[in-house]
Amino acid sequence: MDLSYFFNLAGVTVFAVSGALAAAEKKTYHADAFSVFFTGFITAIGGGTLRDITLGNYPVSWVSDSNVLWAIFAGFAITFVFPRFLIRMKTGIFFFDTVGIGIYTVIGTRISLLSGVNPFAAAILGMVSAVFGGVIRDTLINEVPMIFRREIYATACLAGAILYIVLDKFEVNGSLNTAVSALLVILVRMIAVRFNLSLPKFRLPE
Amino acid sequence: MDLSYFFNLAGVTVFAVSGALAAAEKKTYHADAFSVFFTGFITAIGGGTLRDITLGNYPVSWVSDSNVLWAIFAGFAITFVFPRFLIRMKTGIFFFDTVGIGIYTVIGTRISLLSGVNPFAAAILGMVSAVFGGVIRDTLINEVPMIFRREIYATACLAGAILYIVLDKFEVNGSLNTAVSALLVILVRMIAVRFNLSLPKFRLPE
Amino acid sequence: MDLSYFFNLAGVTVFAVSGALAAAEKKTYHADAFSVFFTGFITAIGGGTLRDITLGNYPVSWVSDSNVLWAIFAGFAITFVFPRFLIRMKTGIFFFDTVGIGIYTVIGTRISLLSGVNPFAAAILGMVSAVFGGVIRDTLINEVPMIFRREIYATACLAGAILYIVLDKFEVNGSLNTAVSALLVILVRMIAVRFNLSLPKFRLPE
Repeated sequence: MDLSYFFNLAGVTVFAVSGALAAAEKKTYHADAFSVFFTGFITAIGGGTLRDITLGNYPVSWVSDSNVLWAIFAGFAITFVFPRFLIRMKTGIFFFDTVGIGIYTVIGTRISLLSGVNPFAAAILGMVSAVFGGVIRDTLINEVPMIFRREIYATACLAGAILYIVLDKFEVNGSLNTAVSALLVILVRMIAVRFNLSLPKFRLPE
Repeated sequence: MDLSYFFNLAGVTVFAVSGALAAAEKKTYHADAFSVFFTGFITAIGGGTLRDITLGNYPVSWVSDSNVLWAIFAGFAITFVFPRFLIRMKTGIFFFDTVGIGIYTVIGTRISLLSGVNPFAAAILGMVSAVFGGVIRDTLINEVPMIFRREIYATACLAGAILYIVLDKFEVNGSLNTAVSALLVILVRMIAVRFNLSLPKFRLPE
Repeated sequence: MDLSYFFNLAGVTVFAVSGALAAAEKKTYHADAFSVFFTGFITAIGGGTLRDITLGNYPVSWVSDSNVLWAIFAGFAITFVFPRFLIRMKTGIFFFDTVGIGIYTVIGTRISLLSGVNPFAAAILGMVSAVFGGVIRDTLINEVPMIFRREIYATACLAGAILYIVLDKFEVNGSLNTAVSALLVILVRMIAVRFNLSLPKFRLPE
């Protein structure tokens, strides 16, 4: 019941909002209350569920801990009650989403390391925890997946995951490591969006 | 070897037919006998497999019970031999598909409860068992996923799953509960299609 | 540390190259170095991971064996350094890819049989091991999935998987069986492409 538990729930809520909004904004689909909720649900739990079933880490968190589901309901309620506010507050959403991927990356990396996997796999699974819910969301609503868009996103997660693993090797205090590594994800992402930075396109010769 | 085992196999066959037909009807794809079979296979086992690997419920049913695979072959054979009949009998397919989601919802919910998960997760996993095969099918053939179409579908499953859980709390007899809850799914779905009912679209302010 | 272990790593590298090239060639997407790597990664490990989590076969290979990840890095490095060579050498890629599906099919079928599943499930899981990474890759970059394209592909894998299972029933020596069954996949695929063979389209009556 430590602080990271509540941060995680906050991340779940924010990701649920992002999924629900994405479905609701898809004008060519008939997105009713149910499909908006379902998209929020998958966005919020997709990455962590994939990580846990890849690790064989049972029970999967949302199946055993109903607080995760309440956090998703909260995200859905927020989307239902304050849609106008959310749309106007795009930067607010961006802020929470960024905090969310920071938290998810670090939690995912830590859980993977604790499961005894090798550091490369831990870094990839930490990044997958943060971004895969969005990949499933984008595939469902038939948009270009986030990882193929311009802005630096998954790369920021990977940087944070690698930092966490390196500091963990040097036996830095866990809470400090969590804070610093999550902060790296958040800063890289914020700076990238603020200054419109992207990695160069991978070019094939003509 | 109870009755629900045979109902389940019937559901597998019906879903296999629905997947095989969906692939065969996709005119822009080169759907040969193999890809038609494969789409039917994934439609039939997708939802239950996702439920079982999320629960860590091993072995997954079609891996350990070859009757499930025979039921899929039966569905493929039906599609191969009677396509004209199937297309003319659209309402027949609709009827069996509706019976199928009723059965899958209740079986999925019961298996989840027996695995000891919380009731919210059981309701969601029951619904996922019924609808996710179709979601994968639609994603494979690049159609708008069923949950984003007008007609009430997944909501009917969720209603049946919730009823099953409530009656189970009140210790209603298992067979009675199964029948009543599956019937609710079937009735909600039939009434929705008969009277063209849909949930209101989730509207965002302009 | 037998020969098939090194063949498997070679297969991983080749599949990683195929995924990385597919992402890099998608002109309408912003594919940077990261998303090119990520697509290669998913293509290389997707089929085997799905097989292992369906079997409950933990730990999943790339999570426990970092050599698999190095093989993916090698594939990415090859794509990065020799893209012009790769594009000119299309038939070279085709050759290695074909060797890859041969190896993956046989390894996947063997692992499934060793897990004690029924032969039908083993054949399907062997084929899934070989083709599913490509299915996920094509879904991610929104192309028609390989199994819906003209050329015989998954059918070749299924033929090899079935041969492996039959020879295994007759207690043929494991190494011989591996070689013969992988060769069948490779030959069927090569002959199909060389003579432009495809299964007839599954026709529905008008």
